[in-house]
Amino acid sequence: MDIKLYYAPGACSLASHIALEELHVRYRTVRLNLAEGDQRKPEYLALNPRARVPTAVVDGKVLTENVGIMAFFAGGLGQGKIWPTDTWHQAMALSTMAWLSNTVHTTYSHLFRPMRYADDAASQEAVKSRARIAYGDCLKEIDGLLAGRQWAIGNHYTVVDGYLLVFYRWGNRQGYSVKSMANYARLMDRVLARPAVKRVMADEGITLD
Amino acid sequence: MDIKLYYAPGACSLASHIALEELHVRYRTVRLNLAEGDQRKPEYLALNPRARVPTAVVDGKVLTENVGIMAFFAGGLGQGKIWPTDTWHQAMALSTMAWLSNTVHTTYSHLFRPMRYADDAASQEAVKSRARIAYGDCLKEIDGLLAGRQWAIGNHYTVVDGYLLVFYRWGNRQGYSVKSMANYARLMDRVLARPAVKRVMADEGITLD
Repeated sequence: MDIKLYYAPGACSLASHIALEELHVRYRTVRLNLAEGDQRKPEYLALNPRARVPTAVVDGKVLTENVGIMAFFAGGLGQGKIWPTDTWHQAMALSTMAWLSNTVHTTYSHLFRPMRYADDAASQEAVKSRARIAYGDCLKEIDGLLAGRQWAIGNHYTVVDGYLLVFYRWGNRQGYSVKSMANYARLMDRVLARPAVKRVMADEGITLD
Repeated sequence: MDIKLYYAPGACSLASHIALEELHVRYRTVRLNLAEGDQRKPEYLALNPRARVPTAVVDGKVLTENVGIMAFFAGGLGQGKIWPTDTWHQAMALSTMAWLSNTVHTTYSHLFRPMRYADDAASQEAVKSRARIAYGDCLKEIDGLLAGRQWAIGNHYTVVDGYLLVFYRWGNRQGYSVKSMANYARLMDRVLARPAVKRVMADEGITLD
């Protein structure tokens, strides 16, 4: 199987990147520089007209969205142990990833890219200001969901734990005191200590800060 | 298995409601009136603190998010034939549902509930005005994805087709000319003709208009 992953350093594609590395499958990566507009170049738009990362190309076929990519590699291929094994926990993992994607990520986008949501500067500022509170609420909600848990879903590491790192890192970089969120910080310490996660962060050239 | 689905008429929970009906499983429904704030009542918040629909309660355990609920019932339980059978198409279905949830649905929310995204009336109007264009683009993108296809994913009806009805109906009610979008309209005619879909719409008390 020929696997290629298009990612941007520190973007949400980090979740899919970590998943591939954890699975010990052979894959290649293509790095996009979003600030330089690589995602809008014709060769990338031909793969993913939405101009977003991640995009996976599997034997020439295109798959987008973290949820789809991680379900295919970690769940569908069944290699490794980073996908829940029972049906209920699989549904819980998908439910959690759907929420991370449709609520936590989009809330962050309002804070980080308010120009997507309104034309004028004053409205963009209003969107950003609302999102600053809402993203903090998301982080607190995640912290609460992790209370008393060793891993996000079931009783071992899954792709959901890697996905959670994206939002923890973004929160940290935006000045939220994520390191004092007891449950979230404890899980992230464990995630950051994983060799595959260390390799991916080094490869992307990113740190937590 | 004891299954209860909390939904609101015409909300995105329609997708999960249709999935359960298509599967011919035994389930009960609880209808919420969002305009009257049923989703903020203590008994519902105890199940789903996010105050959103749908929520499924399965043998006393709570599962939220369309993606998680449909994956569990249509995919995990394996009853019926409304989930793709091969791994690639399962990933494509999840990818498509993730996008419907994180982009198409959230774009509609900006149009329909702009007060979620900014505090002042002028900014809310700006958010709404941007979203009006963006939701039209989403509908066109869906229409394009369906070109030359009989069903959204693979070669038979899946939960993705039922989920697509939600956005088609919302578009229609907001004055987008969805019925003239050849591919989308053709698929929806087929979906609307399904006995399970007719039963659910009658039960929710909704029509396309």
